[in-house]
Amino acid sequence: MTCISLLTDFGLKDGNVGVMKGVIWGIAPGVQISDLSHEISPQNVEEAAFVLARAAPYFPDGTIHLVVVDPGVGTERRPMAARIGPYHFVGPDNGVATRLLDYATRQDWKTELVHINNPEYWLSEISHVFHGRDIFAPVAAHLARGVALNAVGKTMHNPILLHLPSPTALEDALHGEVVYIDRFGSLVTNIREPELSGHEIRSIEIHGREIEGMVKTFGERPHGSLVALFSSTGDLIVSVVNGSAALELGGRVGDHVTVKFYP
Amino acid sequence: MTCISLLTDFGLKDGNVGVMKGVIWGIAPGVQISDLSHEISPQNVEEAAFVLARAAPYFPDGTIHLVVVDPGVGTERRPMAARIGPYHFVGPDNGVATRLLDYATRQDWKTELVHINNPEYWLSEISHVFHGRDIFAPVAAHLARGVALNAVGKTMHNPILLHLPSPTALEDALHGEVVYIDRFGSLVTNIREPELSGHEIRSIEIHGREIEGMVKTFGERPHGSLVALFSSTGDLIVSVVNGSAALELGGRVGDHVTVKFYP
Amino acid sequence: MTCISLLTDFGLKDGNVGVMKGVIWGIAPGVQISDLSHEISPQNVEEAAFVLARAAPYFPDGTIHLVVVDPGVGTERRPMAARIGPYHFVGPDNGVATRLLDYATRQDWKTELVHINNPEYWLSEISHVFHGRDIFAPVAAHLARGVALNAVGKTMHNPILLHLPSPTALEDALHGEVVYIDRFGSLVTNIREPELSGHEIRSIEIHGREIEGMVKTFGERPHGSLVALFSSTGDLIVSVVNGSAALELGGRVGDHVTVKFYP
Repeated sequence: MTCISLLTDFGLKDGNVGVMKGVIWGIAPGVQISDLSHEISPQNVEEAAFVLARAAPYFPDGTIHLVVVDPGVGTERRPMAARIGPYHFVGPDNGVATRLLDYATRQDWKTELVHINNPEYWLSEISHVFHGRDIFAPVAAHLARGVALNAVGKTMHNPILLHLPSPTALEDALHGEVVYIDRFGSLVTNIREPELSGHEIRSIEIHGREIEGMVKTFGERPHGSLVALFSSTGDLIVSVVNGSAALELGGRVGDHVTVKFYP
Repeated sequence: MTCISLLTDFGLKDGNVGVMKGVIWGIAPGVQISDLSHEISPQNVEEAAFVLARAAPYFPDGTIHLVVVDPGVGTERRPMAARIGPYHFVGPDNGVATRLLDYATRQDWKTELVHINNPEYWLSEISHVFHGRDIFAPVAAHLARGVALNAVGKTMHNPILLHLPSPTALEDALHGEVVYIDRFGSLVTNIREPELSGHEIRSIEIHGREIEGMVKTFGERPHGSLVALFSSTGDLIVSVVNGSAALELGGRVGDHVTVKFYP
Repeated sequence: MTCISLLTDFGLKDGNVGVMKGVIWGIAPGVQISDLSHEISPQNVEEAAFVLARAAPYFPDGTIHLVVVDPGVGTERRPMAARIGPYHFVGPDNGVATRLLDYATRQDWKTELVHINNPEYWLSEISHVFHGRDIFAPVAAHLARGVALNAVGKTMHNPILLHLPSPTALEDALHGEVVYIDRFGSLVTNIREPELSGHEIRSIEIHGREIEGMVKTFGERPHGSLVALFSSTGDLIVSVVNGSAALELGGRVGDHVTVKFYP
């Protein structure tokens, strides 16, 4: 049974997520839908790109990742569908697929993009402000039924891509930044586990605080301790045990972080 | 496969939504359930009526719309089930179906209401405070299994209806009000697209602010602009591009709005 | 069709709940998943234990209750699976099953616990910080497919149990405490309906306020009234009609409550 993951910035109050599910089930009854998140900050394409890429690989092959964080809805931004390795992506061409495409490159996955332009697979009336309901949900549902990718649109190149900041290597140090803040207030950085392998870590500096070494998990330190560890997807994160690093440090996306090595 | 949409003011913390799904799947295994919203403001029947009517028509024929916003639970308010065009409704007779019934009238749909009174289709023990679990969810699940509407209750008339404010036509203007505020802080009014057709719009006045003309979508104006446009369901809305009109204007349900026409 | 209920403190923003569903559907396609709650306060095992025990009995026989409120992830706390009457439980051995096990004892249900130790039913890579994804979700999915409980782990005894405060009988009174605060701001106490049967209730005292007698439902008193009643699961609760007792009284978990009887 095909599975659709659904990622939006709609929140859960207005019923728009439910509407998209109604549209999907009208076309593809019985398809399983997993809410990935609907609490992306309004119009925050960067945040959605992060959540998508981190979650997508845990879904079964054939899953269709449907993303509607779409500040440019109704303008000339293109609606896009894609095959990205074992998955499909459906959503706006606004950079939200950047990190998933980046992951695909690292995995050496085949990628194929189309500009959605075949209204046969849309609702009959198209609003200017809710393509999630009128275009993206129906296209995802048709893909779930087995419609071919090149039936819903024509091959496209040069999708919009976000700039992804890379860490900078210094003498005996790696300099990165915070790219996401999670529900527990952990500061997720763009420094990844493999980039630190081969180094003996001396300290992590962030917001004028110095954290000595890393831990493997939260329970190794008492409540309230500021710790650095690898997240479940291999990102270096800074956390407070049973607390919030975001609150305690006033941490924000873009904050600098430096990992110092023993020489 | 039958689909149930679920609309409550329960929030998502206490587990009560999950409990209703457990009850439904105990009776009708495999039925698809779409959460329409559980973030309706506590006991806010007006808000639920708005969300329901706006979302319901996008669901597949045969969907059962199950609504539990029920401040009168355990009092003499009647539990109600209905066939409303291609859908079923199950919920309290407290006005929450008003806008959906109004929509049905405009669509010329057939409507049939019953006062749920057959305990054969309820849980065996009925609490005084959670008919969503004990009465409405089981009745919806039995309807999903194919039980006939007139088996779960007896025909009723005169359901409780909310007063729905209508816009007032002035000389070269239409005067309406805000009826809902959505997740993005857009002010949704009771002025609808067809009511403005044939007029050339000069400005929209709200909270002492004057918006010149309308746009089709958010992306037509720079960030922070106050704009008026039609929502995805044809309501006149007032928004701030990438911002919140509710915050910027201090907007509230009931606020006056005036659309001025060129003579 | 087997059903899995899912209870976490993950919130809905980061995508981790969706990831767990992806993992489950990769192993057990088509299984129904009911979100019980993901808004448990971070690391609050007591709160999760309350929500689980109150909701679990409303699910169909065979449901697998999957709980990931897991402050000790990656430490020596044991991953646990259990058969508890007609249900399975999967989650950390940290006390989160306490109230469900207590309920099982009162129902005279058979209970069987295992220490999950067979990596054959886990994901191939195990992080230190997200056993929900790597161990608990896959084990729950395998149980849903029919894998035997004793295949996923070895029999264990002495699970970690929370201390559950019992009410104290005084002369013509029963003294209890607040154990949970729900979405509507109702204060849920540890005094249950059967413990008050045979007594004529004079008043309920809490936070220096005295409530005369009890009501059956909210609608019996005007808006804003402070009332005491039995919840849908038989707990004595203190509420404000169309308001919040938690806000009005500044109520908290652990607050004292006294029910006074007529002699």
